[in-house]
Amino acid sequence: MGLVVQKYGGSSVADAEGIKRVAKRIVDAKKNGHQVVVVVSAMGDTTDELIDLAGQVSPIPSGREFDMLLTAGERISMALLAMAIKNLGHEAQSFTGSQAGVITDSVHNKARIIDVTPGRIRTALDEGNIAIVAGFQGVSQDKKDITTLGRGGSDTTAVALAAALDAEVCEIYTDVDGVFTADPRVVKKAKKIEWISFEDMLELAASGSKVLLHRCVEYARRYNIPIHVRSSFSGLQGTWVSNEPTGDSKVEQAIISGVAHDTSEAKITVVGVPDKPGEAAAIFRAVADAEINIDMIVQNVSAASTGLTDISFTLPKAEGRKAIDALEKAKGAIGFDSLRYDDQIGKISLVGAGMKTNPGVTADFFRALSDAGVNIELISTSEIRISVVTRADDVNEAVRAVHTAFGLDSDSDEAVVYGGTGR
Amino acid sequence: MGLVVQKYGGSSVADAEGIKRVAKRIVDAKKNGHQVVVVVSAMGDTTDELIDLAGQVSPIPSGREFDMLLTAGERISMALLAMAIKNLGHEAQSFTGSQAGVITDSVHNKARIIDVTPGRIRTALDEGNIAIVAGFQGVSQDKKDITTLGRGGSDTTAVALAAALDAEVCEIYTDVDGVFTADPRVVKKAKKIEWISFEDMLELAASGSKVLLHRCVEYARRYNIPIHVRSSFSGLQGTWVSNEPTGDSKVEQAIISGVAHDTSEAKITVVGVPDKPGEAAAIFRAVADAEINIDMIVQNVSAASTGLTDISFTLPKAEGRKAIDALEKAKGAIGFDSLRYDDQIGKISLVGAGMKTNPGVTADFFRALSDAGVNIELISTSEIRISVVTRADDVNEAVRAVHTAFGLDSDSDEAVVYGGTGR
Repeated sequence: MGLVVQKYGGSSVADAEGIKRVAKRIVDAKKNGHQVVVVVSAMGDTTDELIDLAGQVSPIPSGREFDMLLTAGERISMALLAMAIKNLGHEAQSFTGSQAGVITDSVHNKARIIDVTPGRIRTALDEGNIAIVAGFQGVSQDKKDITTLGRGGSDTTAVALAAALDAEVCEIYTDVDGVFTADPRVVKKAKKIEWISFEDMLELAASGSKVLLHRCVEYARRYNIPIHVRSSFSGLQGTWVSNEPTGDSKVEQAIISGVAHDTSEAKITVVGVPDKPGEAAAIFRAVADAEINIDMIVQNVSAASTGLTDISFTLPKAEGRKAIDALEKAKGAIGFDSLRYDDQIGKISLVGAGMKTNPGVTADFFRALSDAGVNIELISTSEIRISVVTRADDVNEAVRAVHTAFGLDSDSDEAVVYGGTGR
Repeated sequence: MGLVVQKYGGSSVADAEGIKRVAKRIVDAKKNGHQVVVVVSAMGDTTDELIDLAGQVSPIPSGREFDMLLTAGERISMALLAMAIKNLGHEAQSFTGSQAGVITDSVHNKARIIDVTPGRIRTALDEGNIAIVAGFQGVSQDKKDITTLGRGGSDTTAVALAAALDAEVCEIYTDVDGVFTADPRVVKKAKKIEWISFEDMLELAASGSKVLLHRCVEYARRYNIPIHVRSSFSGLQGTWVSNEPTGDSKVEQAIISGVAHDTSEAKITVVGVPDKPGEAAAIFRAVADAEINIDMIVQNVSAASTGLTDISFTLPKAEGRKAIDALEKAKGAIGFDSLRYDDQIGKISLVGAGMKTNPGVTADFFRALSDAGVNIELISTSEIRISVVTRADDVNEAVRAVHTAFGLDSDSDEAVVYGGTGR
């Protein structure tokens, strides 16, 4: 039996009862002979309450102080969890991100882990303790200031510790049973995925699946740490994410892993751009300088009569205002006519390594959308993913149609077969 | 203008409004040309809420984890205070006890400061920042674990930092105007003391005055750091505590500094102790082994007929049960008849360096109590203090009578005159 890293989210430790329930589960893993390292998030609404307090004293809180404030949340949950474990007769010690050796850069509120030096964790384990570590936080390498890792940071803490400690598995406990072939709130017949490759999981995460964040999966792939996503409320097996099928799920890789959707993006169209070299570069330089991440880009064919073209791109809605401002400021230098902003869009993505060897997937995808009466506005593809942008109103219907068309529905015995490869 | 350490208690930073009010006061000190270090307690009821949470997960929380939990409180208040100061256009940085270099022993929940290495604070000040430091907490020298200093620990943090940084003054901001000649809730005519010596303040603190704790005053005396106790709600001068009158209060030392009272103690009488050498030692060894601090001791004159005597002592009520248990266990070895436990007692103490040179003080003290019809059960004295134990019901009346008799009432023009020294 080796070392296991378990991560529990805020909903799993929302109150004293939750903490005691989680403590029992941790002790079970210990009793099964594992060395156990636990990464925990702040209790339930703690982080939101702290953010609210910050808003009451300052409209634009300092990044450094904001991180100092928010990290109080995990400090509370981890100490309580350690107490609850000790109350079950097992030894436990809690560690802040800094004490656990989570070294980051100095970008407050969204720091990146640059090293993990878990000497104290190793010592605690060697002495027979269960080690409880604060998720979401670290300490900056140069200034020794407290930092936070941003949204989903606790998952990243867990994977990073698992890598540094050479863990057998990183278990991510959450309030759902695993990763599904589509969002079960939209697709009633969505199935839990038993195993998925890092590559497919990365594409799903990039396409709107919320269960695991891209950064966390990327980290796990780099260090080849199997992730087991499962519910902290049930004892069920969840979803394994790894290079090869592992654990209890010796399954074949599916052609299609799932359908993801995302309605958090908006589309900006730059109208009347002179069709000459350097124009697109100038537009995206202006956006990049405003530190905005863009997703899909499409340039229309230039109208020969005018010599002008339109360029559209998608970006997070939250950054729409900033992008418009940046482009308006650069309007004179770039020389376009106008900007159009559209936040009533949605993105549907089909993800699966099987696409590489099944050229018919793209056609079937478009056919399913067309049969459902969904109009396509933008298209983007990777080797193992195809994404389209549609009207936001069409997204749910489109996801269901595609899910059914590719035989992913849970009660369906049929599966789409491509060429001779079969399933 | 030199360096000032300011300490704000939980009631001063109970909510966002309080934090903003305190931030203004801190900025004023900075504008006046001071370098400012602020020590802050947890907001209002935060600590109590965290203790309650701990009780929900474990009946006997681990000391190490309890300290980890409680220190979240100051982390929240100090980050918010730094944000509020920055919002007023001044630079501020918050530091945990560990970051501020508050090094302690490893006794969780009541650690003692053994060193202060405020390198980061000094750097922050040199860069023009206001430094905000978490009170009440430190890091243990050997294990690098988070520790707390116990009740009143934030005052001690402030004085210790003031000493390490060679501050001009340590200002303790609280919700009262300063140290009074008696508890104003009991004695309406109690006066604010303008200046009091370390020695008299130590005796008042040991005798039940709650404004400053003994440990904090002891630390300030050792390093000769003047303390200025004042209200965070008014702009008034408070009470200076120092070796010699300092600051704005160039006053003579009073003969009597004040009257303190304490109803937190109980009395245990060991009845029927054989009157032979070693008996008292055996009794107090049993109590000391249970780690109980006792206060006053009195041994009755032995009755010649029986060869037996009674020994009484006072101790904190909270430790009464433990003391009784310890003595019962040692009953066979010590050989006494029975134990009497009485928690309906109170202690009244008169404190003043003038006692040394005014032998009439003791007689006047007893006269005042007698005139008020108060019966005395135990007596204990030091060079500058005289304390008596009475019935708890008599305490308030006794304090008022003594306060009046020694001319301490605020509307009184009279003062008691001793011998030729006068007042």
